[in-house]
Amino acid sequence: MPEYSLGLDFGTLSCRALLVDVKTGNELASAVMDYPHGVMDDTLSCGKKLPRDWALQDAQDYLTVVCKVIPEVIEKSGISAEDIIGVGVDFTACTLIPVLADGTPLSRLAKYRCEPHAYVKLWKHHAAQKYATRINELAEERGEPWLELYGGKVSSEWAVPKAWQVLDEAPEVYADAAMFVEAADWIVWQMCGKLTRNSCCAGYKGMWNKTMGFPSDDFFKALDPRLEHIIDEKFSREISPLGSCAGYITEDFAAKTGLVAGTAVAEPIIDAHVFVPAVGITGSGEMLAIMGTSTCHMLLDQKEYKVQGISGVVADGILPGLYAYEAGQCCVGDHFQWFIENCLPKDYYDAAEEAGVSIHKYLRGKAEAKQPGESGLIALDWWNGNRSVLVDGDLSGLLLGMTLQTRPEDIYRALIEATAYGTRKIIETFRKYEVPVNSFYAAGGISQKDPMTMQIYADVINMPIKIAGSEQAGALGSAIFGAVAAGSEKGGYDDMFTAAKALGKVKDTVYYPNPENVEIYDKLYAEYEILHDYFGTGANDVMKRLKALKGL
Amino acid sequence: MPEYSLGLDFGTLSCRALLVDVKTGNELASAVMDYPHGVMDDTLSCGKKLPRDWALQDAQDYLTVVCKVIPEVIEKSGISAEDIIGVGVDFTACTLIPVLADGTPLSRLAKYRCEPHAYVKLWKHHAAQKYATRINELAEERGEPWLELYGGKVSSEWAVPKAWQVLDEAPEVYADAAMFVEAADWIVWQMCGKLTRNSCCAGYKGMWNKTMGFPSDDFFKALDPRLEHIIDEKFSREISPLGSCAGYITEDFAAKTGLVAGTAVAEPIIDAHVFVPAVGITGSGEMLAIMGTSTCHMLLDQKEYKVQGISGVVADGILPGLYAYEAGQCCVGDHFQWFIENCLPKDYYDAAEEAGVSIHKYLRGKAEAKQPGESGLIALDWWNGNRSVLVDGDLSGLLLGMTLQTRPEDIYRALIEATAYGTRKIIETFRKYEVPVNSFYAAGGISQKDPMTMQIYADVINMPIKIAGSEQAGALGSAIFGAVAAGSEKGGYDDMFTAAKALGKVKDTVYYPNPENVEIYDKLYAEYEILHDYFGTGANDVMKRLKALKGL
Repeated sequence: MPEYSLGLDFGTLSCRALLVDVKTGNELASAVMDYPHGVMDDTLSCGKKLPRDWALQDAQDYLTVVCKVIPEVIEKSGISAEDIIGVGVDFTACTLIPVLADGTPLSRLAKYRCEPHAYVKLWKHHAAQKYATRINELAEERGEPWLELYGGKVSSEWAVPKAWQVLDEAPEVYADAAMFVEAADWIVWQMCGKLTRNSCCAGYKGMWNKTMGFPSDDFFKALDPRLEHIIDEKFSREISPLGSCAGYITEDFAAKTGLVAGTAVAEPIIDAHVFVPAVGITGSGEMLAIMGTSTCHMLLDQKEYKVQGISGVVADGILPGLYAYEAGQCCVGDHFQWFIENCLPKDYYDAAEEAGVSIHKYLRGKAEAKQPGESGLIALDWWNGNRSVLVDGDLSGLLLGMTLQTRPEDIYRALIEATAYGTRKIIETFRKYEVPVNSFYAAGGISQKDPMTMQIYADVINMPIKIAGSEQAGALGSAIFGAVAAGSEKGGYDDMFTAAKALGKVKDTVYYPNPENVEIYDKLYAEYEILHDYFGTGANDVMKRLKALKGL
Repeated sequence: MPEYSLGLDFGTLSCRALLVDVKTGNELASAVMDYPHGVMDDTLSCGKKLPRDWALQDAQDYLTVVCKVIPEVIEKSGISAEDIIGVGVDFTACTLIPVLADGTPLSRLAKYRCEPHAYVKLWKHHAAQKYATRINELAEERGEPWLELYGGKVSSEWAVPKAWQVLDEAPEVYADAAMFVEAADWIVWQMCGKLTRNSCCAGYKGMWNKTMGFPSDDFFKALDPRLEHIIDEKFSREISPLGSCAGYITEDFAAKTGLVAGTAVAEPIIDAHVFVPAVGITGSGEMLAIMGTSTCHMLLDQKEYKVQGISGVVADGILPGLYAYEAGQCCVGDHFQWFIENCLPKDYYDAAEEAGVSIHKYLRGKAEAKQPGESGLIALDWWNGNRSVLVDGDLSGLLLGMTLQTRPEDIYRALIEATAYGTRKIIETFRKYEVPVNSFYAAGGISQKDPMTMQIYADVINMPIKIAGSEQAGALGSAIFGAVAAGSEKGGYDDMFTAAKALGKVKDTVYYPNPENVEIYDKLYAEYEILHDYFGTGANDVMKRLKALKGL
């Protein structure tokens, strides 16, 4: 009897469903749909202007799309829903929803339709920076033991700064919120009728640690008396480990999607972390970069190291029994897209059209013809702040070396190189703290579509790069979790290691470093490091001062 | 009887002729023509590729255009050539031509048609940097007294580094050159049949000083034994003061242009310096900026100060009896044009077309709507190196503060502001060395066409800015020299002070600083200074190291 697992991958812009054969790993069919309201970073759906650094979503969109992609993928595949033994889910995080006790998002209430704080705060909502800054200051003053788990800094992207921002700027919304829930847990709640809180989101974004639990009530009280009981009042201390079953599809959700009621649903995982099993990584020393609009770096190890500037280390954070490290770059694909949207002359579009290729492809062709170092340019990849290893959302971009001969492709290539230097900085920081990084995998859109960028990365980090074998590796990873949630009795697997080895995959293509390029990029990386430290570690805080001036 | 003076203004791209009534100052007619070969900075006319940093012209182009614009302006005005009492000439400099003894440019010889070193090296030819660097090193070692006249640095744009580059890289061309001549002197030679060397070019670009003469033969010998007698062999020690008559139109030139043989021709002047009389400046404390592709700053004073990084102070360099200071920025209009050509998205062109305005105007409209500091951006205006006060052609551009919200108009405005900061740096350096700068005039294309830029300059330097009254102020200045060359006997003037007072003019429009903007720009300028010093004075020589890497 054939058995299938359904992987659901909730990204920044869309949700993807993938049906996988749990024996062969074959991908039967997939379906994808954009969120109707997309990312609201300029205007709320009601027309209200949003301040700088905001990024919201409408939780209802997640339900709308999942009720569309599940029936579609089942129909496309031609299989029977009865043969689906498990469902796995991954989601962007921290993607925080204020809800009523029954799970209704506050933004669904008539009185809050035009209240920005009632909406989902997306991972790239950066307007809670001052709350994160205060948390870091106080934690440092008090010598809080958990601070070093987060590389010395809590990010403005995390749950507590976001919830605190709501309390401070919209106390009524905070009061009306029975709790704040990660979108990952919220969607599983809609599917199973039961709320659990997964260890991945809680550990990486929620300040939870398996050994230490949460920061003390006393710490929260010292931040703001109103926050004293925030964990018990608005979150929960019950955290469910990854790799377990979160619940079973309800009759109601079955009716909406065509799934069979009672199908096992896995504890959800963050959309980046799910790629680790999808490429078959099950042990230490193997770094994975998920390269899309931003990049996340994942690394497993048996030991718990404290690494300065690495934003998370979570026991059982990806696979049971291993510490999972996460680092990241806030702006990678977004960086290249910014350039294409803002800095490309008309004649490039005309030439691309004449050549019958896309503007991306045309520009890449011109950039590819350049040699490392030829442009004389260097950039700092901080257009959206720096997540690792500086953990500072107030940093901004830098481009240096322009002359009147500088062409758009030179700048484009410099931006790509800058993100590769940022990745190298992360790798070198791990190594400095003695966490081994012996091999490198890449997943995500860029790894699949952009050989030039992958070659630049291989040359800059001086390591071969293996590429995720599925073009839908996120959804594949979720399907692996789904197969484990079902268990071997139902035809799935009993543990993530066996399942990841069986179903995870990489491509035949490997990008090997070119020694000549490595030599030049070593020199350029040395320049990057000098600029990184000068602008990033307090020698010249011009970026922060310019940001402060913006408000005047 | 009406009397007219003809001003000829040889710019970087074209030559302009203007007929001026020497009594009323009325501008009767003008004519302009582009040089057929333009600036050759990528490919020589024969198709040969040029190395980086080269910028050549074809001397024959100067004759071609002058023989076109003179008859055209006479015809347009409807006057008789007999009523033209004098001709004045201004020219870009250092614009260096290797010639035979009869004035034939070496590039006219068949054997040299495809030899780049036989062509005119334009002011913005920067490939002689290593020769300038060696001159500076040696002069400093030997404590040469003339070095401080040039702010401690000889520029790669000057005559001796350019001639030395020819000797070193094309010794045959050097040997065949009877001499090297500034284009200003060369064109007057073609007009009068007699070569003189004007004090303006010699003083600012030729290392000549009225009191000290040239650097010693011994210095040149120590540079390179072949250079020992370079001044006597390839230049001349006979220098003619500005404000005097260089000669008279020959029969031959009269036949080619319709001028009357025997008409007085003034000693030529550099195209920037000529603006000083054109706006009516005749004394100290009044700075003039000529803002076009690059900017030159002119300032007169009774005293000779040594100002670090100011590229020239020449006795009688503009008006007799006064020291004339020159500073400059290598890249101003070029900077904005680079941006428009390389960094503007297609939808901006579409929107401009739809609005029925030029892309410049469309972009300016968007930039104008921005407040100072709003973009969070700051730039260093070194896309073409730095002339004042760092005197370093190896520096390059910097742009800092970009985020994903940064729009093209933000960058455009930041580039404009950067050039204003560069101007303020020059003013503050003069003041630091106690040279008074009490008022500010602007001439050149940008001053006439771009009110937004002029307002930004007024806000950044915190001084009102007066604007040249003629849209052809360069040619007007030359015509003033022409009227003085003719003398009062012929209906002209006997001295430049009287002539400049009578014929120089400014517009009624004055740009006054806005105090609110001044306050913000003070803060931004403080950031500019920190970056200027960090990247420009040796703390981080990344720009030089990146330039060196380009060649690998």
